[in-house]
Amino acid sequence: MTKNEALELLFGKLEASKAIDTAISLMHWDAATLGVPEKSIQARGAAIGWLGGESFKRFIAPDTLEAIETLENIPDELNDHERVMVREAARQYRKVKAIPPEEFQAFAALTSEAQVVWEKAREECNYEMMLPYYEKVFDYQRRVCDWYGYEKHPYDALLDDYDKGATVEMLDVFFGALREKIVPLLKDIVKQSKQPKEIKGLFNIEKQREMMPWLTDISTYDRDRGRVGEVEHPFCTTITPDDVRITTKYHEDSIFSSVYSIIHECGHAVYEQNFGSDLIKYGLNECASMGVHESQSRLYENMIGRSKAFCERLLPQLRGKFDYFEDWNTDMLYRAINIARPSLIRIEADELTYSLHIMIRYELEKALMTGEIKAADLPTLWADKYEELIGLRPETLDKGVLQDVHWSMGAVGYFPSYAVGTAYAAQLMATLKKNIDVDAAIRNEDLSPVTAWLTENVHKHGAMLTPDELIMKATGEPFNPKYYVDYLTEKFTDLYLTK
Amino acid sequence: MTKNEALELLFGKLEASKAIDTAISLMHWDAATLGVPEKSIQARGAAIGWLGGESFKRFIAPDTLEAIETLENIPDELNDHERVMVREAARQYRKVKAIPPEEFQAFAALTSEAQVVWEKAREECNYEMMLPYYEKVFDYQRRVCDWYGYEKHPYDALLDDYDKGATVEMLDVFFGALREKIVPLLKDIVKQSKQPKEIKGLFNIEKQREMMPWLTDISTYDRDRGRVGEVEHPFCTTITPDDVRITTKYHEDSIFSSVYSIIHECGHAVYEQNFGSDLIKYGLNECASMGVHESQSRLYENMIGRSKAFCERLLPQLRGKFDYFEDWNTDMLYRAINIARPSLIRIEADELTYSLHIMIRYELEKALMTGEIKAADLPTLWADKYEELIGLRPETLDKGVLQDVHWSMGAVGYFPSYAVGTAYAAQLMATLKKNIDVDAAIRNEDLSPVTAWLTENVHKHGAMLTPDELIMKATGEPFNPKYYVDYLTEKFTDLYLTK
Repeated sequence: MTKNEALELLFGKLEASKAIDTAISLMHWDAATLGVPEKSIQARGAAIGWLGGESFKRFIAPDTLEAIETLENIPDELNDHERVMVREAARQYRKVKAIPPEEFQAFAALTSEAQVVWEKAREECNYEMMLPYYEKVFDYQRRVCDWYGYEKHPYDALLDDYDKGATVEMLDVFFGALREKIVPLLKDIVKQSKQPKEIKGLFNIEKQREMMPWLTDISTYDRDRGRVGEVEHPFCTTITPDDVRITTKYHEDSIFSSVYSIIHECGHAVYEQNFGSDLIKYGLNECASMGVHESQSRLYENMIGRSKAFCERLLPQLRGKFDYFEDWNTDMLYRAINIARPSLIRIEADELTYSLHIMIRYELEKALMTGEIKAADLPTLWADKYEELIGLRPETLDKGVLQDVHWSMGAVGYFPSYAVGTAYAAQLMATLKKNIDVDAAIRNEDLSPVTAWLTENVHKHGAMLTPDELIMKATGEPFNPKYYVDYLTEKFTDLYLTK
Repeated sequence: MTKNEALELLFGKLEASKAIDTAISLMHWDAATLGVPEKSIQARGAAIGWLGGESFKRFIAPDTLEAIETLENIPDELNDHERVMVREAARQYRKVKAIPPEEFQAFAALTSEAQVVWEKAREECNYEMMLPYYEKVFDYQRRVCDWYGYEKHPYDALLDDYDKGATVEMLDVFFGALREKIVPLLKDIVKQSKQPKEIKGLFNIEKQREMMPWLTDISTYDRDRGRVGEVEHPFCTTITPDDVRITTKYHEDSIFSSVYSIIHECGHAVYEQNFGSDLIKYGLNECASMGVHESQSRLYENMIGRSKAFCERLLPQLRGKFDYFEDWNTDMLYRAINIARPSLIRIEADELTYSLHIMIRYELEKALMTGEIKAADLPTLWADKYEELIGLRPETLDKGVLQDVHWSMGAVGYFPSYAVGTAYAAQLMATLKKNIDVDAAIRNEDLSPVTAWLTENVHKHGAMLTPDELIMKATGEPFNPKYYVDYLTEKFTDLYLTK
C-alpha cells in the first residue's frame, strides 16, 4: 500500500463514519427531544445497531490496520494532521483489537441488561439484585486493563479512555490535594453553620424559556449553527460541525436548574463550535478528551456563570421576568447560587463538594481494579467514605452506591474526568485572567474575548493535542491541582468564612 | 447459490436498507421541522448522500442479481411473500441497471441544478432560463422509456414508476371520461354564476393547533405510533413501521388549509400504520403505488372530510374555538368548503377541478414523450389547454407552465398518479359504502369501521398486490373511472345545479 493509498483509504473510512455519526446523533436527538413511540423502540434500536455495527466493521477491517502501519512507518512524510490522525486511529484500533470479540459481545449484552436491572434495583434499594452485574462488570474491566496493558497501575488503562494520558499517579496527587484542603474547608463551613437565604418559589416555565436567548448569547453559543431542544436529561450533541445542539429542561420549582444547565451545555457546545475547520478532513474535530470537554462546560457554568460579575448581569434579567427577585440584590443572589453543604447525591452537588463525590468513586474504582476490595463490599465502603469525607452517611442505597448509572453501563474510569475537567478549567482560567479582563467581559455581557482566548488555546486544537500537551501549551505548565484548590478555597472562604 | 443463501442475502440487504431509510427519513423530518442550520447544509447533504449511495451500492451489487435469478428459477419453492419480494426486487434491479450509470449521474447533477434554476425562473417568469433544462429532462426521460422498454406507448414506461402497471391506454380512457363529463360540468357551474358565502377571517393559530388531536383522532391516525410536526410544506413520513409521522402548517388567514392538510396526511399515515406486520420481513410494507397512496389521502380528505356528515361534526368544533362561526350552519359550511371554480394553480385547486389540472399535464407529457411537441412549445400549449379545459388563461408563467417543481426534479409520469389515486378512492368508496354505513361512522365520530374495511382491503396488503390486483380484489371489478365521474357529478350537481 502506498502512502497515498493508505491516506485515501483512511479518508474514505472517515467519510463513512462521519455520515453514520451524523445519522446516529440525529436519531438520539430525536429520541430525546420528541421521544421514540413505544412500539418503535425496537426498530429504532435495530437501525442504530445496524449503523453503529457498520461503522465499527469498517473501522476494524484489516485494511485499516494495513493503512495505519503503512503510515506509521513513514512519520517524516506526513504532515502534523496526518500524523495525529494516524496516531489516534492506531490508538483506537489497538484498543478495539485488544479485546476478544466474544468477550466484547458478551459484555455488551451484559450491560444492556444491567442498565434495566439497575433502574429497578435503585428503585427498590436492592443491592443483591445488582451485585452479580457489578461483579461481572468489574471483572471484565479488570481484564480490559490487562488487554489494553499499562505501565504502573491497572486502572491507568481505563482512565486513558476518558482522559487520554490520565494516570493514578497524577490523580492521587490531585485528589490528595482535595483531601488535604477541601475536605477541611467543607468541615469549617459546616461548623460555622450559617447559610444564606435560598431561592424558593415557582417560576413560570414560559418566562424561563424567554431567558434562553440571553443565556446562550452571553455564553457565545451560536444558535445559527445549532438548535436548542428540551429534554429530560440535558446534553449537547454535534450533528455536523456547523450543527451543534444543546438541550435543557425547565423545572417550575427550580429556575437555576435550567439557567445553569443551559450555560453548562453552552460550554460544551462552544468548544465543539470552535474546533479548527482544518481538522475536519482528518476527523480531528473532536475533543482532546472527556476531561477537557468537561473543563469547558464547567468553566462557563461555574467560573463564569457563578461569579459575582455574572450575578450583576443576571439579576436584572431575573427581575425583568419574575417579581420574586424584587427585593434581591447582587450579593444575595451570588450567595444563594453558591450555597455549599454536604449532600449525598452527586448530580445535585454544589461546586465545592462536587469533586469530593468524585473522589469517593475514584478511590473505590481504583481499589476494585487492584482487587483490594470487592463489589460486595461497596455499600459499606461507600457509606463509610461519605461519612468520612462529606460528613453524611446515606441511609438508603438509592442515595448511596446505587445512585449512578455508570457502572451498570460498564463504565469504569469515567468519573475522574468530571473532577479533573473542573481542575483543568481552574488552571486555564488562571492563565486566561492574566490575559483577559474576564469580569469586565461579563459586565459588558460580551464574553467573546474569553471565548476567543479559549478558542485560540483550547477549542481550535480539537484532538490535535493530548490533554497534557494542551494544558502545557495553554498555561505554560503541566496540570497542577493547586489552581483548582486555590480557586475553591478563595471563593468559599470569602463566601462563608470571612466577615 | 442455494435458495436459503439467496433469501438470506436479500434479507440482509433489506436490513441495511431499512436502517438507512430510517436514518434518511429522520434527517428529512429534522430538516423540515427544525430546519438545517445554513452552514450545515453541505455536511448534512454529504451525510445523506453517503447513506443513500451506500444503500444503492448494496442493492445493485452483482450478488443481488445472483440471488434474484436463483429465486426466479424456483418460483414453486417460494411462499407468496418471497415471490413478491423477488418480483419487486427484480423489477427495481432491472430498472436501475437499464440506465447507463454515467447518464444517471449526469441527470442527477442536471436536476439538482435545475431545481435551483427553477426557483429563480418561476420568480422571474423567465421560460428561456428554464428551457435548456426542460429540454434535457424530457430528452433523458424519452431515452429512459427506451431503456426501460414498453409495449405500446413510450410514456407507459414512466407511468409505471408512480403507478405500477398504469398505461396510456388506461389513462386515455380515464381522462377521456373527465373530459366528457367534468369539463362540461364545470362550464355549467361557471354559467350559473352563483357562489356560496366564503370563509374569510383570521383564525388564531394556537386555537387551530388545539383542533389537531380531534382531527387526527377522527381520522383514526394513531398518534402513539407517530408524531405530528409543523413544516412549510406538509408531508407524511415513515421512520419505522410504528413511527409514522405527519406534518401540517397553520395559516392564520386560512383555517381549512391546516384542517384538510391534517386529514390528508392522516390518510397517508393510516395507510402506512396498517400495513400487515407479516410484510415487514420481506420489505413489502410499502405502498402498492403512489397512486394507491394518494387514494387513501384523498379518500379521507375529500370523500370523508368534505362530506355533509363530516361538516355536521366539524361545525361544533369550529364554534367551540372561533366566534366567527356563530352564525354558520352545516349546509353553509358544507358549501363553503366545497366551492368549485376555475383556477390556474394546481395545488390550490378544488376537488372538482383538481383532476383537470392533472389532465393538462398528462396530455403534455404524453405528447412530449412521443416527440409530437417540444419543450419550447410548452408555454403556449399550456395556456391553450387551460383556456380550453378550465376556461382561464394564465397571464404570467409562474401561474402557468412554471408553477410545478416536478419537471425540474426530472419527474415525468408523476402527475397522473394524483388523479388516478383520487379515482381509485372513489371506486373504493363505492364498495365501502355498500359494506359500511360511512355517514353513520362519521356522525359517531368513529371512523374505525371505515379504516377497518380499508385495512382489510387495501392497507394490510402493502406492496403484495399491484394497483390493478388491489382494485380488482377490493371492488370486484377492474379500475373504472365511472365511479369518480359519478361521484363528482353527483356531488357538484347537488351543490350547484339543483335547487
